[in-house]
Amino acid sequence: MSPPNTPVPDTDLSPTLQLARALIRRRSVTPEDAGCQDLMIERLQALGFAVERLRFGAVDNFWAQRGDDGPLLAFAGHTDVVPTGPEAQWQTPPFAAELEDGLLKGRGAADMKGSLAAMVTACERFVAQHPDHRGRIGFLITSDEEGPAADGTVKVVDWLEARNTKIDWCVVGEPSSTTRVGDVIKNGRRGSLGATLVIKGTQGHVAYPHLADNPIHRAAPALAALAAEVWDEGNAFFPATSFQISNINGGTGATNVIPGSVTVVCNFRFSTEVSAAQLQERTAAILARYHLDATIDWHLSGEPFLTAEGELVQAAVAAVEAQTGHKPALSTAGGTSDGRFIAPTGAQVVELGPVNATIHKVDECVAAADLDTLSCIYQDMLARLLT
Amino acid sequence: MSPPNTPVPDTDLSPTLQLARALIRRRSVTPEDAGCQDLMIERLQALGFAVERLRFGAVDNFWAQRGDDGPLLAFAGHTDVVPTGPEAQWQTPPFAAELEDGLLKGRGAADMKGSLAAMVTACERFVAQHPDHRGRIGFLITSDEEGPAADGTVKVVDWLEARNTKIDWCVVGEPSSTTRVGDVIKNGRRGSLGATLVIKGTQGHVAYPHLADNPIHRAAPALAALAAEVWDEGNAFFPATSFQISNINGGTGATNVIPGSVTVVCNFRFSTEVSAAQLQERTAAILARYHLDATIDWHLSGEPFLTAEGELVQAAVAAVEAQTGHKPALSTAGGTSDGRFIAPTGAQVVELGPVNATIHKVDECVAAADLDTLSCIYQDMLARLLT
Repeated sequence: MSPPNTPVPDTDLSPTLQLARALIRRRSVTPEDAGCQDLMIERLQALGFAVERLRFGAVDNFWAQRGDDGPLLAFAGHTDVVPTGPEAQWQTPPFAAELEDGLLKGRGAADMKGSLAAMVTACERFVAQHPDHRGRIGFLITSDEEGPAADGTVKVVDWLEARNTKIDWCVVGEPSSTTRVGDVIKNGRRGSLGATLVIKGTQGHVAYPHLADNPIHRAAPALAALAAEVWDEGNAFFPATSFQISNINGGTGATNVIPGSVTVVCNFRFSTEVSAAQLQERTAAILARYHLDATIDWHLSGEPFLTAEGELVQAAVAAVEAQTGHKPALSTAGGTSDGRFIAPTGAQVVELGPVNATIHKVDECVAAADLDTLSCIYQDMLARLLT
Repeated sequence: MSPPNTPVPDTDLSPTLQLARALIRRRSVTPEDAGCQDLMIERLQALGFAVERLRFGAVDNFWAQRGDDGPLLAFAGHTDVVPTGPEAQWQTPPFAAELEDGLLKGRGAADMKGSLAAMVTACERFVAQHPDHRGRIGFLITSDEEGPAADGTVKVVDWLEARNTKIDWCVVGEPSSTTRVGDVIKNGRRGSLGATLVIKGTQGHVAYPHLADNPIHRAAPALAALAAEVWDEGNAFFPATSFQISNINGGTGATNVIPGSVTVVCNFRFSTEVSAAQLQERTAAILARYHLDATIDWHLSGEPFLTAEGELVQAAVAAVEAQTGHKPALSTAGGTSDGRFIAPTGAQVVELGPVNATIHKVDECVAAADLDTLSCIYQDMLARLLT
């Protein structure tokens, strides 16, 4: 038996933790926002931010801006969360935002309502100290990062470009850290390019193979060649480009029928050493070498991006060191994030957020103290860049 | 508009066509017999056959025998038929057994109720002419050839062996002909060996391929090697052994997950130049060359069999020539049949039946005159072998 828990009242907590709890308690599974953005907007308007609500399709987004000119530092993030999975498997209810043993628990605690709260409270303290800071502070918030990501950040970026608002520095609140808050800053991401390949043959009976043309047999050596290909060697910032087949399906289910086609779904995670166009061309060349009758549907999720150096990386590294005493590592590993939509505008982009060990899992949680530290890091960056 | 059809009454038809119609009108989709065997048994008992009904599981079978000693010529066949497919696509109802333009139409007309009728009427005329024929005539009839074939011929063969009844010559009524009745006699069949191969890897995220081990990538070169392997060159009676992958399935459906395994279903159709055991050994050796972590489940449907020469083939060839004026070709091509269960007992086995162009299809049919010719061929064989 565990001892009975005494719920920790909000009034005992820092403003960052209070706000994080309030956000977690809103069930904002993609594409729902469930009122999270209202909460943020209310706080930002109180600080003098001008807010534009931007609803695209079923997705709530907003842009908030404080200041009229000068360099623009934008915080970017999402209020939506991934589904809970089986709620019965959670040790505490996923939207209860309970605090136990120094951990703030709940879906979105780490990805990324904790970061959103830290961004808001960082601005509150920074504006209180520097009401007349130089430049501009922005918030680019969506509720469609964990889903199709079609009516979220990408549309807000289009809208900003249309009104000629150019982000100079962007801090994405994705949980970049691995064991300690701030130990890793992501200063780029690999590109992601998907393909669905349909290799055609001629259906027939296995007893009469001369009347059929087995697409699985035709595909096998070509897939072996794709899997063996060295696409690049990576570089100082990126691991080598990786090709992975995620799904292969061919066959009628019957054991005596040669199927008419086989479908292969694959994905490239690629470095800045190759472009999506080059990967497409090289793939087609390998397939042509095996004389396949194939169609390919490509889906480019994002070109790779890299903020190798500059004021933003310097400010982020210095802020982490100042607030935690540890020097962060720069990394481009891991999956995609909405940074892929912002980087192509020419913005410097880093991702800096809490520890990602539990994200998308049952019992997602974050160390409560880490959110306070994260808020101080964000405040420190504001001070380095906008004073 | 087609002109209205005037149904052809049974009384205008030969006994063979009348019996074929009566059999077709019984909806005996596997494993149902629907009274077909009763009809045959009644006719055979009237000729002095001793009949043993043999029900195994849900499958009706029977063994009928006329004569007590001497060489045993058995007719083998099945009363079950494959499903009709969409009945609305048939030009005449599949169980109406209509006769139009010289064609007897319906499910089972060619495979193989026409043959069953021809066997029975052949015996009727033969016994009338030769009531004291030498040797024995047998009928080995099942209703489970088109299905699992587990409770049909294979069980009857076991039962015959247990009572020490040895078939010398077996005529299977499978539709062996391609364009003209009797143009092809099947004097053997390739073996059929199936395998389900599960190649294992380690599941993971496509963004972290170093933490996963992609089983599709591992499988591809091994499958290419299996597809390229020359298993044998065949021989005078058999085409080269063929390997075909019928189904391949791997993947979770998600595009960002490397699956933990991939499943491959494949099939050998093999000649008498290799054995099933040799194929299994060589397959394992190829997989071992690629260091796959794989399991294989083998399913041997039947070893190849061949009746290269002997009294039965001679009688069949001579009967076809005498009744049609054409010399038949001997062939071992095509799928499996219940002959695979009878041949291992040491019996000489041929398959000789009507044209197979429409079997298993919508609008299955057979030339009505061919069934009368087939009955004469069977009667001629009885005379050559048992007088």
